[in-house]
This record gives sequence, structure tokens and C-alpha cells, in this order.
Amino acid sequence: MAATTETLTAARILEATEEVLRRHGPAKATVVDVARALGVSHGSVYRHFRTKAALREAVVKRWLDRTLEELTAITSDEGRTPETRLRDWLTRLFAAKRDKAADDPELFATYFVLAKETQAGPAVGEHIDDLTGQLTRIIEAGVESGAFAVSDPAVEARAVFQATGRFHDPDYAGEWLRPEADADFRAVLELLVRGLRSGC
Amino acid sequence: MAATTETLTAARILEATEEVLRRHGPAKATVVDVARALGVSHGSVYRHFRTKAALREAVVKRWLDRTLEELTAITSDEGRTPETRLRDWLTRLFAAKRDKAADDPELFATYFVLAKETQAGPAVGEHIDDLTGQLTRIIEAGVESGAFAVSDPAVEARAVFQATGRFHDPDYAGEWLRPEADADFRAVLELLVRGLRSGC
Repeated sequence: MAATTETLTAARILEATEEVLRRHGPAKATVVDVARALGVSHGSVYRHFRTKAALREAVVKRWLDRTLEELTAITSDEGRTPETRLRDWLTRLFAAKRDKAADDPELFATYFVLAKETQAGPAVGEHIDDLTGQLTRIIEAGVESGAFAVSDPAVEARAVFQATGRFHDPDYAGEWLRPEADADFRAVLELLVRGLRSGC
Repeated sequence: MAATTETLTAARILEATEEVLRRHGPAKATVVDVARALGVSHGSVYRHFRTKAALREAVVKRWLDRTLEELTAITSDEGRTPETRLRDWLTRLFAAKRDKAADDPELFATYFVLAKETQAGPAVGEHIDDLTGQLTRIIEAGVESGAFAVSDPAVEARAVFQATGRFHDPDYAGEWLRPEADADFRAVLELLVRGLRSGC
């Protein structure tokens, strides 16, 4: 089988796992299915991921991190004011989640189940820490530039993230394609930006 | 049976339905169970609620409205400034939901299932309209007093309601007893109040 002649990397296993999940759904996908898709023994898969749970955790992390790159670019873009970065970042996060949910609803549902299942593991928590960490940096930049007036950027970042939950928490995916979703998002965003801006 | 000698009112049927739901769970509770608990024929129950769906809808509405009275009192309390009313109202809403979830988790879970099931019906939507209507009145009062500077109180009310979803949407009930929940709520509340306050 051609596949066995390539080096078996963690990345290739995760790629195959996603395909298997897409085909069999989260309840039925097994490590044996993944190994079969790669044309290797399941022992080879276990050498990279010690348990089925570890494999699931890693595939969730990969899925979640797929949004991160673009957001990181916005966070670091000093060509935009901190306020613009904040708006663009939250808008991008909402759009990315909505696109994921709309473009491949079955895979999205699969990952939603997996993310709930792995809530106890570190992947989801680390992803949220990454995101709120980026928001903290943007708000700090806003405080430095004088655009925002807040005493604790990390607290505000967490508040902004939680207050926009409706627009990124997969629990709300069913609301994202409603005609009023964009106006709702904009109203929340503007209210939050005003709250950060003012020290009044 | 003593029960049959009392007049069968909609209120008594709803009371009994809640008891039946508590005992049998939402999947198993039937109109026959409700009739039996009241010592009447199921035809008598159907004279008040034409279908099982209508009965479930009504019992959900009653459950949701149980929070409303206190909130209505805060909304109308001109002894408090609009900003205080807003804080007290949101704090009360969070506390009421949290208490419901903590005091009787099984009944809460039951109503959660029912509310999801009746999402297509008017009860949940009407309840949310009531709540955002009250928020609109508080924000309008704030604009009149000069405390808030916003152009459309109804839009801001909806934004405030959605931005605080984590603290009243039953989807998040699992988060409400975490040690950080109060600080999280306070941070979101302060950010939103500042956003309403400022016209800057």
C-alpha cells in the first residue's frame, strides 16, 4: 500500500482521523478505522497517540487551532489601531465559526460532540486561554495608545469573550444563520467597544 | 376522591403537571398521568389544554414567568436610579436562574428539555420579549435621566440581554456554581454599564 511507504507523522494521523470521523461519526470512529485508512497497524497509531482519548483530544485541538492563525495575525497587526483590531478580531472569530458550521455542518456537529466529550481534557481550555490571551494583548495595546480606559485588560478580555459567547460558542450555531444575527453581533460589539473606550 | 370536588382550573392542572414531570421526567409524563394525579378523566384535562403540546407549552410558560414578578418590580422601582435598576435586574435574573438550577436540579433539567422542545411555540419567545421589554424600559429611563447615552434603547436592551446570556441561558447552568462565576458576571455587567453610560 502506498501509504505505508510515507513516514507516519502525527499530522497524517490527525488528517486521517478527521476523515474517519467525517465518514463514521464520533460514536463509531475507532483507532482501527484510522489505522486502516492509513494502511498501517493500530499499534503504529498508538505509538503517536497513547490512547483513543489522546487522539480525540489532539484532533479537537487541531480543529480549534485552525481559526487561530488569522486571529493571531490581526492581534499583531500594528498597522491597525487597537480598536480596529478588536473589531476585526471579533468579527473574524464569528465569521470563522459561522463558516465552519455552514460549510460542513456534519463535521462541525462531530467536532461539537468531541469538544463536549473532551471538555475535561486541556484542549478546549487551552484554546480559550489562547483566545482571551490575544484579546488581552489587543486591549493592553488600546490602553497604551489611550484608546481604552480599563484597569485590568485580562479581566476585560475575559468579559469581552464571554459577552460575545453567543457569536462563537458552538451551542449557538443554530442562531448564526438567522437574518438578525449580523445586526445582533454588531450591537453587542459596539456596546462592548464603548464600554472599553470610556473611563466615564 | 377529594380532588374531584374542587373546580378543575388551568392553574391546578399546571400544578399537577409539574408534579408529574418531576416524578416521571419529561419523556414519560403523559396527560393520563396528570389526570390521574388530579383524580379526573383525561377528557377534563383536554377541555383546558387541547393537546399535550399545549399543556407542555403552558407549563413552560408558568415556569419561566415565575422569575418575572420580581424583575417587574425592579423595572418599575423609581426609588432606584436607572443604572441601579439595571444592575439589580441583571443580578436578580442571574440569581433566580442559578437558584432554580441549584435548588431542584432535576426539575430544572426537565424544564430545560421542555423549553428546547417547545422552542417552536410562543412561550420561550414571549418570555424573552418580556425580559428585553423590561430592559428597554430601564434603559429608556436612563436616557431620560441623562445616565445613559444611547440612540436606540430597544437595540441596546437586546444587546445587553444577549451579552449576558452566559448568566441566564440554561445551556450554561453547569457554569453557574463555579467559583469564578460571580466575578465573571460582575466584569461583564460593569463593561456593559460603562458602554451604556458613555456617549464618548
